[in-house]
Order: sequence, then C-alpha cells, then structure tokens
Amino acid sequence: MVQAQCKEKLTMVVFSGDLDRALAAFIIATTAASMGMEVTMFFTFWGLNVIKKNEGSLKSQGWMLKMLNTMNRGGSKRLALSKFHMMGMGTWMMKKLMKEVNMPTIDELITMANEMGVKLVACTTTCGVMGVSEDSFRSEVTSLAGAAYFLGEANESKATLFI
Amino acid sequence: MVQAQCKEKLTMVVFSGDLDRALAAFIIATTAASMGMEVTMFFTFWGLNVIKKNEGSLKSQGWMLKMLNTMNRGGSKRLALSKFHMMGMGTWMMKKLMKEVNMPTIDELITMANEMGVKLVACTTTCGVMGVSEDSFRSEVTSLAGAAYFLGEANESKATLFI
Amino acid sequence: MVQAQCKEKLTMVVFSGDLDRALAAFIIATTAASMGMEVTMFFTFWGLNVIKKNEGSLKSQGWMLKMLNTMNRGGSKRLALSKFHMMGMGTWMMKKLMKEVNMPTIDELITMANEMGVKLVACTTTCGVMGVSEDSFRSEVTSLAGAAYFLGEANESKATLFI
Repeated sequence: MVQAQCKEKLTMVVFSGDLDRALAAFIIATTAASMGMEVTMFFTFWGLNVIKKNEGSLKSQGWMLKMLNTMNRGGSKRLALSKFHMMGMGTWMMKKLMKEVNMPTIDELITMANEMGVKLVACTTTCGVMGVSEDSFRSEVTSLAGAAYFLGEANESKATLFI
Repeated sequence: MVQAQCKEKLTMVVFSGDLDRALAAFIIATTAASMGMEVTMFFTFWGLNVIKKNEGSLKSQGWMLKMLNTMNRGGSKRLALSKFHMMGMGTWMMKKLMKEVNMPTIDELITMANEMGVKLVACTTTCGVMGVSEDSFRSEVTSLAGAAYFLGEANESKATLFI
Repeated sequence: MVQAQCKEKLTMVVFSGDLDRALAAFIIATTAASMGMEVTMFFTFWGLNVIKKNEGSLKSQGWMLKMLNTMNRGGSKRLALSKFHMMGMGTWMMKKLMKEVNMPTIDELITMANEMGVKLVACTTTCGVMGVSEDSFRSEVTSLAGAAYFLGEANESKATLFI
C-alpha cells in the first residue's frame, strides 16, 4: 500500500569523469525523469569534473592542490572519452557523430536534467580533499552533501548505480 | 503477498567492452539464472563489442564511422583485459589460466546465458551514434531497446549493476 | 511488516583494484555501517588486490601465475590511482592531501570496516583462476565465497553497487 504511493526513485554515484560514462549517466537520468522517476546524481572523485564550471580558473592553495586542479581542471567541455580519446581527436569525432543523429550534448543533458528536477549533488568529502570550493560548480548543482546523504537516497531507490 | 509471487530479477548495464568486466557480468548472469532469477543484460557504449559477431566486417557509412568501427571492431574474440593486456599477451595468459581451472570462455558463457533465458539487449541509442546495424550482433542477442526499457527492467529488479 | 523488521542492507562488488575506487567503496561501507546498515563487500578480479596482505610474497605455481602475481602483487600499500598515478607521484600526493584533511587511509578504513562488522568476502572463482591462496589475504577478510553468495546478499539489499 505504502509502496504503491511511493514515487519510483533512481540514485547514481558518478565517480568517473570520463565523457562516455557521464553521457551514459545523464541519458539514464533524463530518461528516468521523463518517465516520472525521482533522480539523484551524487558526484564524487573524478565525477566532480562533470559538474565544474567551464569558465575561469579554479583557485587552490598550496602547490599540490594547484598542480592537481591544473591537471584535473574539469568542466563539461574538457571531459575525454575513456577509450580512443587520441589526444582529443576521438572525443571530437564522438561529439560529431552524436550531433549527426541529433543527440543532445553533455551540456544540454545537464541543463535538461536540471530542468526536469534531477538533483545534482557534489560530494563534500572529495571537495575537501581536492580543494574544490562550492563556487567551482555550475549553477545546475543543487547542493553539497556527504556519503550518508547518498546512502539515504539509495535506501529509498528502486535502483542505485555506481558509474 | 504479491512480492512473494514475483520472480527475483537482476538487471545489468554492460557499458564496458573489457574482457574482464564482460566475464564478471556473464559469470554473475549465468549464476543468477541457475538460481532461478530472471536476468536482463543491457549492452551500451563499448559494451556492444561484447555481443558483436566475430566474423565478417562491419559495414559503416562515412569516414568517421568507418574509422571507429575499424578501431572498435568488437566481437568476443577481440576483447582485451582492462589491465595487463600487454599487446595481447596478458589477455592470452588470462584465457589460458581460465582454461586450466575449467572455467568457460566468454563465448561459452554467452551461449550458456542465452540457453538459460538471460535477455541480451543492445542499446538502440548507441547503435545509432556508432552506426552499428542490427545484423552486426550475434544470434544470442534478444532485441534492441532504449534506456526506458532498461529503467523498466531495473524498477522490477532486486539488484541493478552498472558494469 | 516483515520489511519493517529487516535491517537495511548494502552489498558491493569490488571489481577494481584502483586506490580511488577502493577508497570510495570503503568510505561508503563505513558510512553505511555507522548508519546501522549491514554491509557486505565482495572482492573479485583486481579487487582482490585491495585485501591482500602487504607483507611477504605470494606463492604461485607455474610461470604464468608467478608472472601474474609478481605484476599484480596487490596489497593496500601498492594500490594506484586510476588516473594521475604518474609513476607513483600522483598517488603519493593524493595520500598527502587526504592526510591534510584528516581522512583515514585505506588501511585504517579496512580496519574500521572490519571493526564495524562489514563482511569482507573474497571471490573463490577469481582466487582459483589467479592462483591466490586463502592465506594471501589480510586478517580482516571474513570468508571466501562464490557469485551465488554475492547474489544471495544482493537479493536482500536495498542497494547493490558494482565498483
């Protein structure tokens, strides 16, 4: 009875910062939202790169964080394929192929997800370790939270994916 | 009451085209099927390589798709380990080690899964982007479907894995 | 009614032997345990490296297993980041950054998980293929079991992750 009243829910950990995995996550998220499901995406580790702003530079303190945040700058436009990146050519080609079949880009998918009510949550722990401040994220990001928040969402979900 | 009558169900997204991850997916699938569970495997992105035919060449239009489908030819016999592939030697060794303990090969696992009623579904969206036609897949593949189909299966499942 | 009496349960397959993925798995595990959830971690393929002893050498028979277990020695202190390992420098830096914000190390997390009752289970099939004997594992490992055991745990779980 109670179950029948529950909205179906989907939770995803986005651990990876690869373009292909990010695309898979957002295609699943927007499809689920269009089916009326509640969706929470929890971005952690390299996954934070997916939701970082494309513009400006990240401010970091100390040489280690400066180095990390230069190499690991992130932002949707800097994501690379996990395979066949080929110094950018493979990734460029994949974007072209997606355009030819009228697939939305990763940026369009992030905007769509946000407009459909998908919650985009950044992991506080990773932000702390990697020295990523809250203003590094794009405006679609709903909030920052920890692993306990993710587990609370997962416990209410029909399916939970680690991507 | 209703729940007790439901068959336990397992759904997997096979995103990866690595031999080791494909093996893990099919070992879990066939074990679950042998326990009486319903199993659906949804192959997407590089995961399509696992279920492509080994024989013949893939027909593609345009130089980008021709290039992609040459580099990313796929087929169970061309899958490589995610680690220690070492230009084929590591992958060859792993197959040898599996044979020594009488483990089935990836091809045998795919056949077994099919005979046990595991549904092998190819992602239509990836097929569209990567220019993979339906006749590129081996006969064990049950159907082509999109992310909405996967989510429907996941919503009925006890566990859903992203591999 | 019955459901309300069930303890919430979380099951994870740890397939990866990367330090970053292992950290994510143990942070989730210890957080879940601290929330009163039952947690089972099932280590398979490269994931076995996470729970191998750091000390001594692994005994293996035959040149292939000797070679594999030399290259793939494992042990928490030998795990590398999936990205930016940079011949050890990136991994060393990440450990430093974690220390600066007082995050526990992977070793401390494994001990914590064990003390909190998290079950650490090694996959018998992988042990067989890779010639890893039971005494290769650290004392926190609870038992060895196969895929059927993992599926039994997953069927009782609120969430199941493949990491």
